[in-house]
Amino acid sequence: MQRYKCIIAYDGTNFSGYQIQPEGRTVQGELEKALGKLHKQQAVKVTGSGRTDAGVHAKGQVIHFDSPLNIPEDRWVKALNSMLPDDAGILSVEKASPDFHARFSAVGKEYRYKISLGRTKDPFNRNYVCPFPFALDWKAMEEAASHLIGTHDFTSFCSAKSEVEDKVRTIHSIKLFESGEDEITFQFIGNGFLYNMVRILTGTILEAGSGKINPNDLPKILNSKNRDMAGKTAPAKGLYLWKVFYDN
Amino acid sequence: MQRYKCIIAYDGTNFSGYQIQPEGRTVQGELEKALGKLHKQQAVKVTGSGRTDAGVHAKGQVIHFDSPLNIPEDRWVKALNSMLPDDAGILSVEKASPDFHARFSAVGKEYRYKISLGRTKDPFNRNYVCPFPFALDWKAMEEAASHLIGTHDFTSFCSAKSEVEDKVRTIHSIKLFESGEDEITFQFIGNGFLYNMVRILTGTILEAGSGKINPNDLPKILNSKNRDMAGKTAPAKGLYLWKVFYDN
Repeated sequence: MQRYKCIIAYDGTNFSGYQIQPEGRTVQGELEKALGKLHKQQAVKVTGSGRTDAGVHAKGQVIHFDSPLNIPEDRWVKALNSMLPDDAGILSVEKASPDFHARFSAVGKEYRYKISLGRTKDPFNRNYVCPFPFALDWKAMEEAASHLIGTHDFTSFCSAKSEVEDKVRTIHSIKLFESGEDEITFQFIGNGFLYNMVRILTGTILEAGSGKINPNDLPKILNSKNRDMAGKTAPAKGLYLWKVFYDN
Repeated sequence: MQRYKCIIAYDGTNFSGYQIQPEGRTVQGELEKALGKLHKQQAVKVTGSGRTDAGVHAKGQVIHFDSPLNIPEDRWVKALNSMLPDDAGILSVEKASPDFHARFSAVGKEYRYKISLGRTKDPFNRNYVCPFPFALDWKAMEEAASHLIGTHDFTSFCSAKSEVEDKVRTIHSIKLFESGEDEITFQFIGNGFLYNMVRILTGTILEAGSGKINPNDLPKILNSKNRDMAGKTAPAKGLYLWKVFYDN
């Protein structure tokens, strides 16, 4: 058996999230279906770096799988892409050592969140950015972000549904930049993110930018360990799992 | 009654084209439904500058309609957008004189065709560009385009299904330019375009670029008045009705 590491992009709009489930079309489900076809219907299990929710996109999700097939790496890309639906695309497949694990070997992740400031209804970005047609104080947003960088207990920035015990995570950087006409992007890099964490961070920074939250209250919000203290959860459609980092 | 001129953008992916028809979701149908709601279910007829096919997008389609309602122009935009589905967006509404006609007053149109040269499967542009992951000779494409500019009988560049008698049209300009990473755009401006004409022009220029058609044969192809002599019809998804021109 050979272990393969594979980078996949997907448009999350029409998926019920990454993780396989009894009902609904999922990224993992489509991947396992495609691999099944390439393995004469023998089940091939796919392990991802983590889940993404319904509507959340990926530019660089990483998965691994094991296969007895000896296929060159570029032929894997073509074969899988021809079996996958149009809204998922394999970017690369490479041989990995048997101890590589898409989830447990990951040392960090980059997420991006796209926000449209435009006041005009744009049918082309309806599934790909979060509309926020209000005035934003850039300095207040950067100040709010600066308090979130570092190692903190992010309980206040995690969905109450989360069953994870340890909510301490390290955010290495948060950058805000213009990414197009009337479009801004928030870039988050960290060692790991809790359930809904990037969407709550985004919602909170936007509330700081629109004056609903005082940026200087961020340390207090972190210390409260109370989800209700932070801002609203920003919608799924603006969120992209951009990159997963591994050592080597 | 007041006549209104209205500019609308739509993502053509999930529409069975612009024009209303017994079956299928159409742009005109959704517009008339939205206007019906604003007029207590009284039918309001919408007239467009022309049809677009299923899958073809619009950045600036123009329509007109008549209404007894006296609503400020910006309130029309908000009211219509709140009634329309997410994949269609009103960009502007303005009062027009009673003799303005979206189709007959138009003096020209701009279409753009987007082509992706990338060799990587990109799930995010699957409905918005035509993939063409092959080498292209830019000079050959510009030479082919130069023969198409001007006033010609475009029978060779018109679907055989067309019932229009007069196939003489004037193309004012064709420009080819890079529009993103691995993306090029063909821009066509003319006094009018026949059924499938922009898609056949695009297919032909691409065949000149990939060496299947000699650019110097373009005059011969025009003179043949034979659809079979020109290139293939490029797919709908790369085509955008960009702008409609009116005098004044």
